[in-house]
Amino acid sequence: MASVFKPEEARFPTALQPPVPPVSKFKIALCQLSVTADKSRNIAHARRAIEEGASKGAQLVLLPEIWNSPYSNESFPVYAEDIESGDGAAPSYSMLSEAARSLKITIVGGSIPERSGDHLYNTCCIFGTDGSLKGKHRKLHLFDIDIPGKITFKESKTLTAGQQPTIVDTDVGRIGVGICYDIRFQELAVLYAARGAHLICYPGAFNMTTGPLHWELLQRARAADNQLFVATCSPARDASAGYIAWGHSTLVGPFGEVIATTEHEEAIIVEEIDYSLIELRRSNLPLQIQRRGDLYKFVDVQRVSHH
Amino acid sequence: MASVFKPEEARFPTALQPPVPPVSKFKIALCQLSVTADKSRNIAHARRAIEEGASKGAQLVLLPEIWNSPYSNESFPVYAEDIESGDGAAPSYSMLSEAARSLKITIVGGSIPERSGDHLYNTCCIFGTDGSLKGKHRKLHLFDIDIPGKITFKESKTLTAGQQPTIVDTDVGRIGVGICYDIRFQELAVLYAARGAHLICYPGAFNMTTGPLHWELLQRARAADNQLFVATCSPARDASAGYIAWGHSTLVGPFGEVIATTEHEEAIIVEEIDYSLIELRRSNLPLQIQRRGDLYKFVDVQRVSHH
Repeated sequence: MASVFKPEEARFPTALQPPVPPVSKFKIALCQLSVTADKSRNIAHARRAIEEGASKGAQLVLLPEIWNSPYSNESFPVYAEDIESGDGAAPSYSMLSEAARSLKITIVGGSIPERSGDHLYNTCCIFGTDGSLKGKHRKLHLFDIDIPGKITFKESKTLTAGQQPTIVDTDVGRIGVGICYDIRFQELAVLYAARGAHLICYPGAFNMTTGPLHWELLQRARAADNQLFVATCSPARDASAGYIAWGHSTLVGPFGEVIATTEHEEAIIVEEIDYSLIELRRSNLPLQIQRRGDLYKFVDVQRVSHH
Repeated sequence: MASVFKPEEARFPTALQPPVPPVSKFKIALCQLSVTADKSRNIAHARRAIEEGASKGAQLVLLPEIWNSPYSNESFPVYAEDIESGDGAAPSYSMLSEAARSLKITIVGGSIPERSGDHLYNTCCIFGTDGSLKGKHRKLHLFDIDIPGKITFKESKTLTAGQQPTIVDTDVGRIGVGICYDIRFQELAVLYAARGAHLICYPGAFNMTTGPLHWELLQRARAADNQLFVATCSPARDASAGYIAWGHSTLVGPFGEVIATTEHEEAIIVEEIDYSLIELRRSNLPLQIQRRGDLYKFVDVQRVSHH
């Protein structure tokens, strides 16, 4: 009867295995930054944190969601940068590119408000070790939440959602990117796993209501279900801010195990990622050949459309 | 741009909303039973636990995975019952039917080894308040695990996998059923949610290696991601058994919150389920209208095939 299982059809197109990564072991830095209303300060502060991560051996640095601006619908248009203009209109972007190039590291640059024509996006830029832009992820699922008496926020009042998932091949492996609320949609993590990701990076600023309930849960679930690494990075908590971040930036391994985490204060976590654990866990629990493609199928719509 | 999101296409066929349940609030009993090599004892013991749950007001009783037999490939054929024969060859089955009818409760009967022709299955029977069989779930994903030095087990040596998901309308709502390893496949929970389940019941016997790592994580993730209730029921731990169960039967709400849980000893949890929380959480976080059907699509293969 096993022949009807069709595990290879549980993903359409068929899931890709992760490629052999350029490095098997390397260090990642999660920079949980304090963020102020002073954009120049935020940029200089992030630059120093990236340097510190690199000085401790990190080959990959991950920054928080919205690290150059307060997190608010009022601030997004004021702090936004026109990334595509390529001139001095994008100082946060330029700093990241320069830091990646001069430090010879990969940077998953958290996110900043991006202005493109008439639209604003919540955007993560990924830079290679030569400072080149490897990919740009515009938040796909906007954070529209309404928990009366706790938190109500509508990113969609000012922001436009992105139109494509973002997965890039870097000197430290194949990385999928999601921003904050994107982590709630298990489909995005399934999609990245099916495209062969080793690691999913989620810059995110969960709040004081959903943070304690769901932040670690969602990270661990995405990692354990998809048997890959998950790294998250939050701004440090500022109790005086309009939006108070939960903090707790974390690195999770492919068994859903927390490898390193922090509290809510500013902190830089530098920790090793060992990609051989992916193959080990997939050998322990071979979910990919146990799936029931005869019962359910996950479709990567854009991979179908493009091929 | 929002018009391209196509959230209604993120599930195919389109997801069903949960129906209005016959009761909004009711009590569930999770009977974490000790299991011995004495089948008659196990049946009588389960009968008393069901009675105790009912006497405490439970309208739904959930039993553990493999509660009438030791959990081993050697025991499955010995303790198996021919459920379809309808005569005295199925004493565990008959007890559950009789208990449901006489106590006027719904029973999700954990699981027992089932013999059907030349095949053995790991099977959960669901009984209505009139004692009738509402559904029969044969474990879809067999537990084939290999963690050297920790645990190696291959259910597929003796068992055959089921061929269809199981979702039933009962006097206490629409219930999807999975057995143990089925909980690792997030797809099954997505499928039940898309078929309008209020509650997913997973009888399960996680072990001492994966239990502490994943048992609560997976339950909470399935509940939070799909915004429905999840109930699990394990055998009590028996350190002298060949397979040592983790225990920790649990009820989880649609925010991924643990409503009630227990340790590893024999225990009967009786706790309230309030289905109005499903609508509340889906209102707080309207994931169903925020999904990106333009990027990913989950296909319920059998619903496509049958309609």
